[in-house]
Amino acid sequence: MNGAEILVRTAFRSGIDVCFANPGTTEMPIVEAFDKAPGMRPILGLFEGVCTGAADGYGRMAGKPAMVLLHLGPGLANGISNLHNARRAGTPVFTVVGEHAAWHRGFDPPLAMDIEALGGTVSGWCGTVSSAREIEADASHAIHACRQGQIATLILPYDYQLEEVSEKNIEEIPLEYGPVDRDAVDLAARLLRSRGSTALVLGGRALGREGLMKAVRIKAACGCDLIAETFPARMDRGVGLPDVPRIPYLPEMAIGMLSRYRTLVFADARKPVSFFGYRNVPGSLIETGQETVSIGGVTQDILEVLEALAEGLGALSHPPRELLAGPSDLALPTGKLDGEKICIVLAMLQPERAIVVEEAITNSIFYHPFTAGSKPFTLLTLTGGSLGQGPPCATGAAIACPGRQVINFQADGAALYTIQALWTQAKLGLNVVTLICSNRSYDILRLELSRLGVLQPGPAASKLLDLSGTDWVKIGEGFGVPSAKAETAEELARELSQALQEEGPRLIEMVL
Amino acid sequence: MNGAEILVRTAFRSGIDVCFANPGTTEMPIVEAFDKAPGMRPILGLFEGVCTGAADGYGRMAGKPAMVLLHLGPGLANGISNLHNARRAGTPVFTVVGEHAAWHRGFDPPLAMDIEALGGTVSGWCGTVSSAREIEADASHAIHACRQGQIATLILPYDYQLEEVSEKNIEEIPLEYGPVDRDAVDLAARLLRSRGSTALVLGGRALGREGLMKAVRIKAACGCDLIAETFPARMDRGVGLPDVPRIPYLPEMAIGMLSRYRTLVFADARKPVSFFGYRNVPGSLIETGQETVSIGGVTQDILEVLEALAEGLGALSHPPRELLAGPSDLALPTGKLDGEKICIVLAMLQPERAIVVEEAITNSIFYHPFTAGSKPFTLLTLTGGSLGQGPPCATGAAIACPGRQVINFQADGAALYTIQALWTQAKLGLNVVTLICSNRSYDILRLELSRLGVLQPGPAASKLLDLSGTDWVKIGEGFGVPSAKAETAEELARELSQALQEEGPRLIEMVL
Repeated sequence: MNGAEILVRTAFRSGIDVCFANPGTTEMPIVEAFDKAPGMRPILGLFEGVCTGAADGYGRMAGKPAMVLLHLGPGLANGISNLHNARRAGTPVFTVVGEHAAWHRGFDPPLAMDIEALGGTVSGWCGTVSSAREIEADASHAIHACRQGQIATLILPYDYQLEEVSEKNIEEIPLEYGPVDRDAVDLAARLLRSRGSTALVLGGRALGREGLMKAVRIKAACGCDLIAETFPARMDRGVGLPDVPRIPYLPEMAIGMLSRYRTLVFADARKPVSFFGYRNVPGSLIETGQETVSIGGVTQDILEVLEALAEGLGALSHPPRELLAGPSDLALPTGKLDGEKICIVLAMLQPERAIVVEEAITNSIFYHPFTAGSKPFTLLTLTGGSLGQGPPCATGAAIACPGRQVINFQADGAALYTIQALWTQAKLGLNVVTLICSNRSYDILRLELSRLGVLQPGPAASKLLDLSGTDWVKIGEGFGVPSAKAETAEELARELSQALQEEGPRLIEMVL
Repeated sequence: MNGAEILVRTAFRSGIDVCFANPGTTEMPIVEAFDKAPGMRPILGLFEGVCTGAADGYGRMAGKPAMVLLHLGPGLANGISNLHNARRAGTPVFTVVGEHAAWHRGFDPPLAMDIEALGGTVSGWCGTVSSAREIEADASHAIHACRQGQIATLILPYDYQLEEVSEKNIEEIPLEYGPVDRDAVDLAARLLRSRGSTALVLGGRALGREGLMKAVRIKAACGCDLIAETFPARMDRGVGLPDVPRIPYLPEMAIGMLSRYRTLVFADARKPVSFFGYRNVPGSLIETGQETVSIGGVTQDILEVLEALAEGLGALSHPPRELLAGPSDLALPTGKLDGEKICIVLAMLQPERAIVVEEAITNSIFYHPFTAGSKPFTLLTLTGGSLGQGPPCATGAAIACPGRQVINFQADGAALYTIQALWTQAKLGLNVVTLICSNRSYDILRLELSRLGVLQPGPAASKLLDLSGTDWVKIGEGFGVPSAKAETAEELARELSQALQEEGPRLIEMVL
């Protein structure tokens, strides 16, 4: 058995059975091993950012890592942007990067690069295998590290992949949460019971159905507000769940929301900071004088922590009905499309158990509020701010959950960074509907320029904001995805309804 | 005047007047400065790899750096792959990366990353500006470093861009070559005069028209063969120039060529090594017992060095006519397209002074030999092995040389990494004809698998080689480039002739 087979077998034994791959020469033994050591399903992405973004979407929905196989330094570099998003989402990703044969590196062949330096920027664990005999142990360590919600990057020289070694069948280290920090929970309970307005800010797994149902019991017991972090990795939402607003993206609006609270308890949520450091806006969105406490964290099970907090507050075992969202009374809009109408149409038509991957940037402002009464669904958002997350993430989510409809609510500018993901959707016939907000502009940058006082960008700046000239129907069809165009709300409702009834991917260009 | 204006003015004063940009929030002051400090022409790329690849093509043809403007760590990461190719080409690129406001970094906002670690992997000079007052000096140093044929990466915090500072008008350090190393030239002359077969291996600027004309005088004087490095950054070729073969990509073939020589003189060319470290193939392609000497190098002007060598060998001032290529006697092929027919059609139809950007991988094997008698043209190749170099490089070359026809001879798989470059070509109406070799397969990897003894890839491996499902005419048109399809050599000749007559970009899918 060669080192490449050992690698694939070790990953498979740890429960990893999907590999998003864009391999090259130095990964060919691993490609060969996919056929020799069966169980792993390799999925081709035509660009590395598709592979890493798909692994992020897969990991968020499957709750376990996918493997990613990339080619040398340049391949990893192309995948870093979406590994960055995955890192910010706490998604486990097992990244394997081929390296030149160990004896060949010293010749500095054309593709040689410092792969560890690249991997270190996004990985909780990153290392180069130093002999074929170490492949199994190193892979086990890497996978253990990534199961804790990190990126693990294993760099594997070509010659070790080919070397014959014996399998040790290293046992997987069980991953167990540590005990709940009772002191933190007691402090949180005391603060939440105190006078003045209080909020429980939810992040990570606290935003799943179970976490939300515990949080709403806490709200019923102490009267606190529930708030979600700005960009949840995965959030359940809709009828029968509490309507939890998200901290706004713009720091002034975030401060407007958060400053109302004397006390904030953060449950697996980071204390909010401004996305960018603007002039005359504080970096931290929490003000001096506001009391805060954090509960949870990577070593604790946030569901246990929330249960302990609920019990500490004497919460009932079922939340009162009036704290859960009922069905919405929205009406389908008509006429020429705008961001608000798109949000309403989508909120009304998205089916039960839909997975909505939202990277719509300026056009999604109204989406969250309108979905409080949607059929129960799961929302995945752009956690790390690195554009081009939507199409790959939707691809990976569809592979993790073949029985669920995926909808990628997507800005045109952001989609263009990783548009090759459409090909994988078409190749595998995935049930992904991509809704392109075609405003042909980096509108978010117009907003940012206006913050600098530039309300009328000059000719040079204007050239850098203008995306006009793309035909999304042709782009979609060019990658094999049946595509259509909608200019009015009625057309969108019709096209979306039809797309949702059909098997396989669809793309709708929503002309704004 | 703010720091951003200082930056743009400093770059412009150094002769940099084109900026390939994909900016974000942290670069908005620089975007604003493009209008306040005129002279710089900003050009939008829809993906960062387009910007860096275009800067590579621009730098190779313009002989001076372009500026590249990227957004934070993820933006730089997306650009690294083509910066790697530029580094291997010795192309000067002035990369500017925005960074969070210095006071904001400590909050670890979502987009924060270790930008210096990323930049260090490809840059000869990489640093973060530490105060607004240092912008001008740091930019000057960076530009000076990159004019020596390197990537220079300047990381510039947002708050410093906005800070008011005064301009020092730092004078540019003149870039001068050092003296020719006479000892090396004398040794080279002695070796070339000695008995046994000898070769002069040319790289870098030695492959330009002037260098080639000096090299052929050397050949006439001493009887040596002329050889070009495997992947030239820029090589002149065609009628009236010597026909210089390139060292083959496959190491066995390269050794077959090189082992014929007892003596090899390397003129601005690296000693050849195997592209990958295969089993039973040496890493160095030069054998023990072969005599070698290197002449030139970054501190010397290779044209002066070659002139000194020619004089040392008593070369005539004009090469004999029979050592220069005459017009080819190729005939246009007919029937269903294959790689060889494509190469012949292109070699025959490419116009005088064409710039051919070749990233055709497996389909370009016959191209170089067939172009010995083509009309004089310039060839740019994939220097660093990182795929997705062709379409951006062609874009940048067209911007550097608006009067010349650019032809991008391009593999389909490689094109898909940076296909967004087509949009910039369409937006600017660039005279680029993209010829897509549509074999719908990573054929180079089939070859690599066969080297491992896998002649019939299994079902898992096969999935990772199969690119079928793209429609290149739709993809081209989706990005705004008029596109056509050719299935026979006659159709290709007709479509290519027509495309070359028209203004603006064209794409031809060559179905294989």
